[in-house]
Amino acid sequence: MAITFYDLAGGDGRRFSPFGWRVRMALAHKGLEAGASVERVTFSQKHKLAFSGQELVPVIVDEGTVVADSWEIALHLDRVHGREPSLFATTGVAAARFFAAWTDSQLHPLIARCVVSDIPAVLDPADLEYFRRSREARFGTTLEAMAEGRNTARAELKRALYPLRKSVEAGGFLAGSGPGYADYAAFGAFMWARGVSGFRLLDDDDPVHAWRERMLDLHDAMPRTEPGFLV
Amino acid sequence: MAITFYDLAGGDGRRFSPFGWRVRMALAHKGLEAGASVERVTFSQKHKLAFSGQELVPVIVDEGTVVADSWEIALHLDRVHGREPSLFATTGVAAARFFAAWTDSQLHPLIARCVVSDIPAVLDPADLEYFRRSREARFGTTLEAMAEGRNTARAELKRALYPLRKSVEAGGFLAGSGPGYADYAAFGAFMWARGVSGFRLLDDDDPVHAWRERMLDLHDAMPRTEPGFLV
Repeated sequence: MAITFYDLAGGDGRRFSPFGWRVRMALAHKGLEAGASVERVTFSQKHKLAFSGQELVPVIVDEGTVVADSWEIALHLDRVHGREPSLFATTGVAAARFFAAWTDSQLHPLIARCVVSDIPAVLDPADLEYFRRSREARFGTTLEAMAEGRNTARAELKRALYPLRKSVEAGGFLAGSGPGYADYAAFGAFMWARGVSGFRLLDDDDPVHAWRERMLDLHDAMPRTEPGFLV
Repeated sequence: MAITFYDLAGGDGRRFSPFGWRVRMALAHKGLEAGASVERVTFSQKHKLAFSGQELVPVIVDEGTVVADSWEIALHLDRVHGREPSLFATTGVAAARFFAAWTDSQLHPLIARCVVSDIPAVLDPADLEYFRRSREARFGTTLEAMAEGRNTARAELKRALYPLRKSVEAGGFLAGSGPGYADYAAFGAFMWARGVSGFRLLDDDDPVHAWRERMLDLHDAMPRTEPGFLV
């Protein structure tokens, strides 16, 4: 198998890492997803990544070349596996980097506040103690307290999504008439939420909702095949 | 003259509207800035825009065609004045629309809190009462109270600029190796601040500072010729 993809997994094997989804969509974009071999890694199985010299998913091994970090993986895939269809064709690399960083800094913290209290229910039992301890330290509060504030976080998310809304309300993608890595970066945040929580992040009439539906339909609707909540 | 450009002006004629700067840079990008005739409009001179059917600058009249709104003007210029050099070449139109909306929603409110209390000093005296009344209503506080909180706003701005920083820290522009409308949208916010206030928005070692310097050097350093504060 040409590519082995190490991705985060929950107790039933479901894959919900937002960074894993960036890689998964990038592989599909390049026509490589169906042929890639997937190694599922739970939070307690970081030893599986020791060969990569670090302990964070996603990692790919491509014909012996080890690449960690979703952004580095996207650059690698575009460089090594032909320029067409490029992940960066319409927006360019610099703008795509912006969209990844915008998602990391603006969307992830707000979506975390909306869904993180639901994550234990989909984890492998061996991951529960680590997950609660690490997340409560990161956010400085209990998972239960975060759940109580999630309607506030949802309202903040709606405001934070304003530029994405303005960009896609005409019916296309951040990258124009077709999707690119810019879209995959933001979409990964929503696939993370979909995989772990039934909490509704978006109003049905939000143009971002329609964009997410278009994203779910991509690559033969591959994203819809992953176990998740129907939101 | 082919194009007449109606732009906001202060008491000494200086042009500091962030939306005006988007248009001014777009005109320069298309090679049209030097030849455009500029009509300066203070806040008290909105009657000068009556012909456009609305009262907001910027407005252009291009061979008899009236176009208002900085985004519509950019689309018009790219459509009518040749595709090369396009304002949207690298990022595409949809991503450029994102950057304009991101600047409007994320940067403008924070920069306003940093500089708005300095604006009266550069206005035409006839504009002072209107400016104070309209801005204090918009922000729900006095200009003086905003000035007291501006170090907090500056710290928030530094965080909000994280995705721009990640995109341009390699030494280029949002649009890649050369600038595009994406860059002009964000740069307009900084030219607004530069025109009205000596308050330092950016640390000297911030990659966004270096990007702003690259932007100031564009089009024969035209942005540096406008009266402003040296920040």
